[in-house]
Amino acid sequence: MCGQCGCDEPQVAPLPRRRLELHQPLLSRNDSQAAHNRDHFQRHGLRTINLLSAPGSGKTALLEQLARHWPRPPIGVIVGDLATDNDARRLQTAGARAVQIRTGDLCHLDAALVDQAFAQLDCSGMDLLVIENVGNLVCPTAFDLGEQRRVALLSVTEGEDKPLKYPALFKSADAVVINKCDLAAVVGFDRRTAIANLSAIAPQAALFELSARTGEGLAALIRWLDGQAA
Amino acid sequence: MCGQCGCDEPQVAPLPRRRLELHQPLLSRNDSQAAHNRDHFQRHGLRTINLLSAPGSGKTALLEQLARHWPRPPIGVIVGDLATDNDARRLQTAGARAVQIRTGDLCHLDAALVDQAFAQLDCSGMDLLVIENVGNLVCPTAFDLGEQRRVALLSVTEGEDKPLKYPALFKSADAVVINKCDLAAVVGFDRRTAIANLSAIAPQAALFELSARTGEGLAALIRWLDGQAA
Repeated sequence: MCGQCGCDEPQVAPLPRRRLELHQPLLSRNDSQAAHNRDHFQRHGLRTINLLSAPGSGKTALLEQLARHWPRPPIGVIVGDLATDNDARRLQTAGARAVQIRTGDLCHLDAALVDQAFAQLDCSGMDLLVIENVGNLVCPTAFDLGEQRRVALLSVTEGEDKPLKYPALFKSADAVVINKCDLAAVVGFDRRTAIANLSAIAPQAALFELSARTGEGLAALIRWLDGQAA
Repeated sequence: MCGQCGCDEPQVAPLPRRRLELHQPLLSRNDSQAAHNRDHFQRHGLRTINLLSAPGSGKTALLEQLARHWPRPPIGVIVGDLATDNDARRLQTAGARAVQIRTGDLCHLDAALVDQAFAQLDCSGMDLLVIENVGNLVCPTAFDLGEQRRVALLSVTEGEDKPLKYPALFKSADAVVINKCDLAAVVGFDRRTAIANLSAIAPQAALFELSARTGEGLAALIRWLDGQAA
Protein backbone atom coordinates (compact mmCIF):
# COMPACT_ATOMS: atom_id res chain seq x y z
CA MET A 1 0.00 0.00 0.00
CA CYS A 2 1.19 3.51 -0.80
CA GLY A 3 1.96 5.35 2.42
CA GLN A 4 1.26 8.72 0.81
CA CYS A 5 -2.48 8.58 0.18
CA GLY A 6 -3.65 5.14 1.23
CA CYS A 7 -4.22 3.84 -2.30
CA ASP A 8 -2.70 0.46 -3.12
CA GLU A 9 0.25 1.67 -5.23
CA PRO A 10 3.55 0.33 -3.92
CA GLN A 11 5.86 3.17 -2.93
CA VAL A 12 9.44 3.54 -4.08
CA ALA A 13 11.85 4.11 -1.19
CA PRO A 14 13.05 7.73 -1.34
CA LEU A 15 16.39 8.41 -3.00
CA PRO A 16 18.99 9.26 -0.35
CA ARG A 17 20.09 12.88 -0.84
CA ARG A 18 23.87 13.17 -0.72
CA ARG A 19 24.43 16.20 -2.94
CA LEU A 20 27.25 17.64 -0.88
CA GLU A 21 29.30 14.47 -0.98
CA LEU A 22 29.23 14.47 -4.76
CA HIS A 23 29.56 18.21 -5.27
CA GLN A 24 32.23 19.14 -2.79
CA PRO A 25 35.27 17.66 -4.53
CA LEU A 26 34.05 19.04 -7.88
CA LEU A 27 33.64 22.52 -6.43
CA SER A 28 36.97 22.61 -4.60
CA ARG A 29 38.72 21.49 -7.80
CA ASN A 30 36.83 24.22 -9.65
CA ASP A 31 37.94 26.78 -7.06
CA SER A 32 41.61 25.91 -7.68
CA GLN A 33 41.15 26.33 -11.41
CA ALA A 34 39.27 29.60 -10.82
CA ALA A 35 42.13 30.96 -8.70
CA HIS A 36 44.48 30.10 -11.56
CA ASN A 37 42.19 31.88 -14.04
CA ARG A 38 41.98 34.96 -11.82
CA ASP A 39 45.79 35.29 -11.64
CA HIS A 40 45.98 34.66 -15.35
CA PHE A 41 43.42 37.34 -16.28
CA GLN A 42 45.12 39.83 -13.95
CA ARG A 43 48.53 39.12 -15.47
CA HIS A 44 47.04 39.97 -18.85
CA GLY A 45 45.64 43.28 -17.54
CA LEU A 46 42.01 42.24 -17.92
CA ARG A 47 38.93 43.27 -15.94
CA THR A 48 36.86 40.10 -16.11
CA ILE A 49 33.09 39.92 -15.64
CA ASN A 50 30.91 36.82 -15.21
CA LEU A 51 27.51 37.76 -16.70
CA LEU A 52 24.56 35.64 -15.57
CA SER A 53 20.85 35.69 -16.35
CA ALA A 54 17.84 33.65 -17.37
CA PRO A 55 17.56 32.66 -21.05
CA GLY A 56 16.42 35.58 -23.16
CA SER A 57 17.14 38.38 -20.68
CA GLY A 58 19.36 40.13 -23.21
CA LYS A 59 22.94 39.18 -22.26
CA THR A 60 24.12 39.10 -25.87
CA ALA A 61 22.26 42.29 -26.82
CA LEU A 62 23.91 44.07 -23.87
CA LEU A 63 27.34 42.81 -24.92
CA GLU A 64 26.77 43.95 -28.52
CA GLN A 65 26.21 47.46 -27.13
CA LEU A 66 29.24 47.16 -24.88
CA ALA A 67 31.39 46.02 -27.83
CA ARG A 68 30.33 49.14 -29.74
CA HIS A 69 30.66 51.65 -26.88
CA TRP A 70 33.54 50.44 -24.67
CA PRO A 71 36.07 53.32 -24.68
CA ARG A 72 39.06 51.08 -25.50
CA PRO A 73 37.85 48.43 -27.98
CA PRO A 74 37.89 45.59 -28.71
CA ILE A 75 36.31 43.77 -25.78
CA GLY A 76 36.70 40.01 -25.41
CA VAL A 77 33.79 37.66 -24.80
CA ILE A 78 33.75 33.98 -23.89
CA VAL A 79 30.19 32.78 -24.61
CA GLY A 80 28.59 29.67 -23.14
CA ASP A 81 25.60 27.97 -24.76
CA LEU A 82 24.40 24.38 -24.85
CA ALA A 83 24.27 24.52 -28.66
CA THR A 84 24.92 26.87 -31.64
CA ASP A 85 27.59 29.55 -32.10
CA ASN A 86 24.98 32.21 -32.91
CA ASP A 87 26.01 34.45 -30.03
CA ALA A 88 29.73 34.46 -30.83
CA ARG A 89 28.93 35.38 -34.42
CA ARG A 90 26.60 38.22 -33.32
CA LEU A 91 29.31 39.55 -31.01
CA GLN A 92 32.03 39.36 -33.66
CA THR A 93 29.78 41.35 -36.01
CA ALA A 94 29.51 43.99 -33.25
CA GLY A 95 33.32 44.20 -33.08
CA ALA A 96 34.08 41.95 -30.11
CA ARG A 97 36.64 39.17 -30.08
CA ALA A 98 34.42 36.23 -29.13
CA VAL A 99 35.02 32.54 -28.47
CA GLN A 100 32.03 30.18 -28.21
CA ILE A 101 31.87 27.30 -25.74
CA ARG A 102 29.22 24.71 -26.61
CA THR A 103 28.49 22.85 -23.40
CA GLY A 104 26.29 20.10 -24.86
CA ASP A 105 23.98 19.33 -21.96
CA LEU A 106 26.01 21.04 -19.24
CA CYS A 107 23.93 23.70 -17.46
CA HIS A 108 26.74 26.07 -16.45
CA LEU A 109 30.29 27.06 -17.31
CA ASP A 110 33.13 25.93 -15.09
CA ALA A 111 36.61 27.35 -14.62
CA ALA A 112 38.31 24.67 -16.74
CA LEU A 113 36.04 25.32 -19.74
CA VAL A 114 36.76 29.03 -19.43
CA ASP A 115 40.51 28.39 -19.22
CA GLN A 116 40.40 26.33 -22.43
CA ALA A 117 38.39 29.01 -24.25
CA PHE A 118 40.66 31.78 -22.99
CA ALA A 119 43.60 30.06 -24.70
CA GLN A 120 41.85 30.66 -28.04
CA LEU A 121 41.37 34.39 -27.43
CA ASP A 122 43.84 37.01 -28.63
CA CYS A 123 43.82 39.37 -25.66
CA SER A 124 46.50 41.79 -26.87
CA GLY A 125 45.42 45.41 -26.46
CA MET A 126 42.30 44.33 -24.56
CA ASP A 127 41.30 45.38 -21.05
CA LEU A 128 37.75 43.98 -20.68
CA LEU A 129 36.77 40.31 -20.85
CA VAL A 130 33.17 39.24 -20.30
CA ILE A 131 32.18 35.63 -19.75
CA GLU A 132 28.58 35.21 -20.91
CA ASN A 133 27.35 32.25 -18.89
CA VAL A 134 24.70 29.70 -19.91
CA GLY A 135 21.19 31.15 -19.48
CA ASN A 136 20.27 29.72 -16.07
CA LEU A 137 19.57 31.43 -12.73
CA VAL A 138 20.55 28.43 -10.59
CA CYS A 139 23.48 26.22 -11.51
CA PRO A 140 26.09 28.79 -12.66
CA THR A 141 25.89 30.46 -9.23
CA ALA A 142 28.05 27.81 -7.54
CA PHE A 143 30.90 28.00 -10.05
CA ASP A 144 33.58 30.66 -9.66
CA LEU A 145 35.14 31.18 -13.10
CA GLY A 146 37.96 33.40 -11.89
CA GLU A 147 36.02 36.57 -12.65
CA GLN A 148 36.79 39.82 -10.89
CA ARG A 149 33.13 40.89 -10.76
CA ARG A 150 29.84 39.05 -11.12
CA VAL A 151 26.95 40.81 -12.85
CA ALA A 152 23.36 39.48 -12.76
CA LEU A 153 20.97 40.60 -15.48
CA LEU A 154 17.21 40.68 -15.01
CA SER A 155 14.72 41.87 -17.60
CA VAL A 156 11.49 43.69 -16.80
CA THR A 157 9.48 41.05 -18.70
CA GLU A 158 10.47 38.39 -16.13
CA GLY A 159 8.67 40.00 -13.21
CA GLU A 160 9.66 41.74 -10.00
CA ASP A 161 9.91 38.60 -7.87
CA LYS A 162 12.93 36.90 -9.42
CA PRO A 163 15.44 38.12 -6.79
CA LEU A 164 13.23 36.49 -4.12
CA LYS A 165 12.86 33.25 -6.08
CA TYR A 166 16.53 32.86 -7.07
CA PRO A 167 18.24 34.48 -4.08
CA ALA A 168 21.64 32.76 -4.26
CA LEU A 169 22.52 34.32 -7.60
CA PHE A 170 21.50 37.84 -6.62
CA LYS A 171 23.25 37.57 -3.24
CA SER A 172 26.49 36.72 -5.05
CA ALA A 173 26.31 39.60 -7.57
CA ASP A 174 28.50 42.71 -7.46
CA ALA A 175 26.06 44.46 -9.78
CA VAL A 176 22.51 43.86 -10.97
CA VAL A 177 21.37 45.20 -14.33
CA ILE A 178 17.64 45.59 -15.01
CA ASN A 179 17.29 45.31 -18.79
CA LYS A 180 14.49 46.01 -21.30
CA CYS A 181 13.44 49.12 -19.37
CA ASP A 182 11.93 50.42 -22.63
CA LEU A 183 9.24 47.72 -22.13
CA ALA A 184 8.56 48.50 -18.46
CA ALA A 185 5.34 50.42 -19.06
CA VAL A 186 3.89 47.97 -21.58
CA VAL A 187 4.44 44.93 -19.32
CA GLY A 188 3.33 46.79 -16.19
CA PHE A 189 6.68 46.34 -14.45
CA ASP A 190 6.46 47.50 -10.84
CA ARG A 191 9.84 49.19 -10.51
CA ARG A 192 9.42 50.08 -6.84
CA THR A 193 8.70 46.46 -5.84
CA ALA A 194 11.57 45.13 -7.93
CA ILE A 195 14.03 47.55 -6.34
CA ALA A 196 12.69 46.78 -2.84
CA ASN A 197 13.18 43.05 -3.53
CA LEU A 198 16.71 43.66 -4.79
CA SER A 199 17.53 45.85 -1.79
CA ALA A 200 16.34 43.10 0.55
CA ILE A 201 18.20 40.26 -1.17
CA ALA A 202 21.23 41.97 -2.68
CA PRO A 203 22.00 45.20 -0.78
CA GLN A 204 25.68 44.84 -1.77
CA ALA A 205 25.03 45.10 -5.50
CA ALA A 206 25.33 48.22 -7.62
CA LEU A 207 22.11 48.72 -9.60
CA PHE A 208 21.76 49.75 -13.24
CA GLU A 209 18.58 50.22 -15.23
CA LEU A 210 18.94 50.24 -18.99
CA SER A 211 17.69 49.11 -22.35
CA ALA A 212 20.19 47.12 -24.38
CA ARG A 213 17.93 47.68 -27.38
CA THR A 214 17.90 51.49 -27.27
CA GLY A 215 21.19 51.99 -25.43
CA GLU A 216 19.51 54.17 -22.80
CA GLY A 217 21.26 53.82 -19.44
CA LEU A 218 24.29 52.04 -20.87
CA ALA A 219 26.73 54.85 -20.05
CA ALA A 220 26.38 54.39 -16.28
CA LEU A 221 27.20 50.68 -16.55
CA ILE A 222 30.23 51.45 -18.72
CA ARG A 223 31.47 53.97 -16.13
CA TRP A 224 31.11 51.35 -13.38
CA LEU A 225 32.95 48.70 -15.40
CA ASP A 226 35.67 51.21 -16.27
CA GLY A 227 36.08 51.99 -12.56
CA GLN A 228 36.91 48.37 -11.71
CA ALA A 229 40.71 48.12 -11.56
CA ALA A 230 42.15 45.62 -14.06
CA MET B 1 54.63 27.71 -17.60
CA CYS B 2 51.00 27.89 -18.69
CA GLY B 3 50.49 25.69 -21.74
CA GLN B 4 47.53 27.78 -22.88
CA CYS B 5 49.14 31.08 -23.82
CA GLY B 6 52.83 30.80 -23.01
CA CYS B 7 52.71 33.09 -19.96
CA ASP B 8 54.34 31.83 -16.78
CA GLU B 9 51.15 30.96 -14.85
CA PRO B 10 51.19 27.35 -13.66
CA GLN B 11 48.27 25.42 -15.13
CA VAL B 12 45.80 23.36 -13.12
CA ALA B 13 45.38 19.85 -14.52
CA PRO B 14 41.92 19.61 -16.08
CA LEU B 15 39.14 18.08 -14.03
CA PRO B 16 38.30 14.61 -15.36
CA ARG B 17 34.72 14.65 -16.73
CA ARG B 18 32.77 11.64 -15.47
CA ARG B 19 29.25 13.01 -15.45
CA LEU B 20 27.61 9.81 -16.61
CA GLU B 21 29.09 7.72 -13.84
CA LEU B 22 27.62 10.05 -11.22
CA HIS B 23 24.30 10.73 -12.96
CA GLN B 24 23.28 7.32 -14.18
CA PRO B 25 22.31 5.71 -10.85
CA LEU B 26 20.45 8.89 -9.84
CA LEU B 27 18.49 8.93 -13.08
CA SER B 28 17.58 5.25 -13.07
CA ARG B 29 16.35 5.59 -9.48
CA ASN B 30 14.34 8.63 -10.56
CA ASP B 31 12.86 6.64 -13.44
CA SER B 32 11.56 3.98 -11.02
CA GLN B 33 9.94 6.63 -8.86
CA ALA B 34 8.50 8.31 -11.97
CA ALA B 35 6.93 5.02 -13.10
CA HIS B 36 5.35 4.74 -9.65
CA ASN B 37 4.06 8.31 -9.90
CA ARG B 38 2.59 7.67 -13.37
CA ASP B 39 0.63 4.63 -12.16
CA HIS B 40 -0.44 6.58 -9.13
CA PHE B 41 -1.72 9.60 -11.10
CA GLN B 42 -3.56 7.31 -13.52
CA ARG B 43 -5.20 5.41 -10.68
CA HIS B 44 -6.54 8.73 -9.40
CA GLY B 45 -7.95 9.61 -12.87
CA LEU B 46 -5.57 12.51 -13.44
CA ARG B 47 -4.15 13.90 -16.65
CA THR B 48 -0.74 15.11 -15.48
CA ILE B 49 1.35 17.77 -17.20
CA ASN B 50 4.99 18.71 -16.53
CA LEU B 51 5.26 22.42 -17.42
CA LEU B 52 8.77 23.71 -18.12
CA SER B 53 10.16 27.11 -19.09
CA ALA B 54 12.78 29.73 -18.37
CA PRO B 55 12.23 31.97 -15.33
CA GLY B 56 9.61 34.62 -16.05
CA SER B 57 8.07 33.05 -19.16
CA GLY B 58 4.65 33.09 -17.54
CA LYS B 59 4.08 29.57 -16.22
CA THR B 60 2.14 30.77 -13.18
CA ALA B 61 0.13 33.32 -15.15
CA LEU B 62 -0.86 30.58 -17.60
CA LEU B 63 -1.91 28.29 -14.74
CA GLU B 64 -3.97 31.07 -13.15
CA GLN B 65 -5.91 31.28 -16.43
CA LEU B 66 -6.21 27.52 -16.60
CA ALA B 67 -7.50 27.40 -13.02
CA ARG B 68 -10.22 29.88 -13.96
CA HIS B 69 -11.21 28.33 -17.30
CA TRP B 70 -10.72 24.55 -16.99
CA PRO B 71 -14.18 23.05 -17.66
CA ARG B 72 -14.15 20.81 -14.56
CA PRO B 73 -12.51 22.79 -11.74
CA PRO B 74 -10.57 22.72 -9.55
CA ILE B 75 -7.23 21.92 -11.13
CA GLY B 76 -4.32 20.74 -9.00
CA VAL B 77 -0.85 22.29 -9.19
CA ILE B 78 2.43 21.16 -7.66
CA VAL B 79 4.75 24.19 -7.87
CA GLY B 80 8.53 24.04 -7.70
CA ASP B 81 10.63 27.06 -6.75
CA LEU B 82 13.97 27.47 -5.03
CA ALA B 83 12.40 29.87 -2.52
CA THR B 84 9.06 31.50 -1.58
CA ASP B 85 5.53 30.14 -1.78
CA ASN B 86 4.34 33.12 -3.84
CA ASP B 87 3.24 30.98 -6.76
CA ALA B 88 1.16 28.53 -4.72
CA ARG B 89 -0.62 31.46 -3.09
CA ARG B 90 -1.31 33.10 -6.47
CA LEU B 91 -2.72 29.82 -7.77
CA GLN B 92 -4.91 29.23 -4.73
CA THR B 93 -6.35 32.73 -5.19
CA ALA B 94 -7.21 31.74 -8.77
CA GLY B 95 -9.08 28.68 -7.49
CA ALA B 96 -6.48 25.94 -7.93
CA ARG B 97 -5.49 23.44 -5.26
CA ALA B 98 -1.77 24.14 -5.07
CA VAL B 99 1.13 22.65 -3.11
CA GLN B 100 4.49 24.45 -3.08
CA ILE B 101 7.81 22.61 -3.17
CA ARG B 102 10.75 24.78 -2.07
CA THR B 103 13.84 23.13 -3.50
CA GLY B 104 16.46 25.26 -1.70
CA ASP B 105 19.29 25.25 -4.21
CA LEU B 106 18.08 22.30 -6.31
CA CYS B 107 17.70 23.33 -9.96
CA HIS B 108 14.91 20.91 -10.95
CA LEU B 109 12.12 18.80 -9.52
CA ASP B 110 12.57 15.06 -9.27
CA ALA B 111 10.00 12.29 -9.04
CA ALA B 112 10.47 11.74 -5.27
CA LEU B 113 9.82 15.43 -4.48
CA VAL B 114 6.67 15.30 -6.62
CA ASP B 115 5.49 12.13 -4.89
CA GLN B 116 5.89 13.79 -1.48
CA ALA B 117 4.00 16.90 -2.60
CA PHE B 118 1.25 14.82 -4.21
CA ALA B 119 0.55 13.23 -0.82
CA GLN B 120 -0.46 16.71 0.45
CA LEU B 121 -2.91 17.35 -2.38
CA ASP B 122 -6.61 16.57 -2.10
CA CYS B 123 -7.28 15.21 -5.59
CA SER B 124 -10.91 14.24 -5.11
CA GLY B 125 -13.07 15.44 -8.01
CA MET B 126 -10.00 16.58 -9.91
CA ASP B 127 -8.94 15.45 -13.40
CA LEU B 128 -6.05 17.78 -14.24
CA LEU B 129 -2.77 18.05 -12.33
CA VAL B 130 0.00 20.36 -13.52
CA ILE B 131 3.52 20.21 -12.14
CA GLU B 132 5.08 23.66 -12.54
CA ASN B 133 8.79 22.93 -12.68
CA VAL B 134 11.64 25.19 -11.51
CA GLY B 135 12.33 27.94 -14.09
CA ASN B 136 15.24 26.39 -15.97
CA LEU B 137 15.57 25.23 -19.59
CA VAL B 138 18.32 22.70 -18.92
CA CYS B 139 18.30 20.56 -15.78
CA PRO B 140 14.61 19.62 -15.48
CA THR B 141 14.75 18.02 -18.93
CA ALA B 142 16.50 14.87 -17.69
CA PHE B 143 14.00 14.16 -14.89
CA ASP B 144 10.81 12.27 -15.67
CA LEU B 145 8.29 13.17 -12.96
CA GLY B 146 5.71 10.60 -13.99
CA GLU B 147 3.83 13.12 -16.13
CA GLN B 148 1.61 12.02 -18.97
CA ARG B 149 2.54 14.99 -21.17
CA ARG B 150 5.38 17.48 -21.13
CA VAL B 151 4.67 21.08 -22.14
CA ALA B 152 7.43 23.62 -22.84
CA LEU B 153 6.61 27.31 -22.57
CA LEU B 154 8.50 30.00 -24.46
CA SER B 155 7.69 33.70 -24.35
CA VAL B 156 8.11 36.08 -27.28
CA THR B 157 10.37 38.34 -25.20
CA GLU B 158 13.03 35.59 -25.00
CA GLY B 159 13.78 35.53 -28.72
CA GLU B 160 13.22 33.14 -31.59
CA ASP B 161 16.44 31.15 -31.13
CA LYS B 162 15.73 29.42 -27.81
CA PRO B 163 14.63 26.08 -29.36
CA LEU B 164 18.02 25.95 -31.15
CA LYS B 165 19.96 26.86 -28.01
CA TYR B 166 18.13 24.51 -25.61
CA PRO B 167 17.27 21.65 -27.98
CA ALA B 168 16.93 18.80 -25.47
CA LEU B 169 13.96 20.35 -23.71
CA PHE B 170 12.06 21.16 -26.89
CA LYS B 171 12.81 17.73 -28.40
CA SER B 172 11.23 16.11 -25.33
CA ALA B 173 8.04 18.24 -25.35
CA ASP B 174 4.60 16.98 -26.39
CA ALA B 175 3.45 20.56 -26.80
CA VAL B 176 5.11 23.97 -27.04
CA VAL B 177 3.26 27.10 -25.94
CA ILE B 178 4.43 30.48 -27.19
CA ASN B 179 3.31 32.96 -24.54
CA LYS B 180 3.09 36.77 -24.32
CA CYS B 181 1.90 36.98 -27.93
CA ASP B 182 0.29 40.32 -27.05
CA LEU B 183 3.87 41.68 -26.86
CA ALA B 184 5.05 40.16 -30.16
CA ALA B 185 4.83 43.39 -32.17
CA VAL B 186 6.42 45.62 -29.53
CA VAL B 187 9.45 43.33 -29.08
CA GLY B 188 9.78 42.65 -32.83
CA PHE B 189 9.25 38.89 -32.41
CA ASP B 190 9.88 37.12 -35.71
CA ARG B 191 7.10 34.52 -35.60
CA ARG B 192 8.06 32.84 -38.86
CA THR B 193 11.64 32.21 -37.68
CA ALA B 194 10.48 30.97 -34.29
CA ILE B 195 8.08 28.49 -35.85
CA ALA B 196 10.70 27.34 -38.37
CA ASN B 197 13.13 26.74 -35.47
CA LEU B 198 10.48 24.81 -33.54
CA SER B 199 9.58 22.75 -36.61
CA ALA B 200 13.24 21.85 -37.09
CA ILE B 201 13.91 20.92 -33.45
CA ALA B 202 10.52 19.72 -32.19
CA PRO B 203 8.39 18.54 -35.14
CA GLN B 204 6.55 16.17 -32.76
CA ALA B 205 5.16 18.95 -30.58
CA ALA B 206 1.70 20.49 -30.84
CA LEU B 207 2.04 24.28 -31.03
CA PHE B 208 -0.07 26.89 -29.25
CA GLU B 209 0.26 30.66 -29.41
CA LEU B 210 -1.41 32.62 -26.65
CA SER B 211 -1.28 35.41 -24.14
CA ALA B 212 -1.71 34.31 -20.55
CA ARG B 213 -2.28 37.98 -19.69
CA THR B 214 -5.22 38.58 -22.05
CA GLY B 215 -6.42 34.97 -22.31
CA GLU B 216 -6.31 35.09 -26.11
CA GLY B 217 -5.50 31.66 -27.56
CA LEU B 218 -6.10 29.83 -24.27
CA ALA B 219 -9.14 27.90 -25.55
CA ALA B 220 -7.11 25.86 -28.05
CA LEU B 221 -4.69 24.75 -25.33
CA ILE B 222 -7.59 23.78 -23.06
CA ARG B 223 -9.11 21.70 -25.87
CA TRP B 224 -5.79 19.90 -26.38
CA LEU B 225 -5.38 19.21 -22.64
CA ASP B 226 -8.97 18.03 -22.46
CA GLY B 227 -8.29 15.63 -25.33
CA GLN B 228 -5.50 13.85 -23.43
CA ALA B 229 -7.05 10.75 -21.87
CA ALA B 230 -6.76 10.66 -18.07
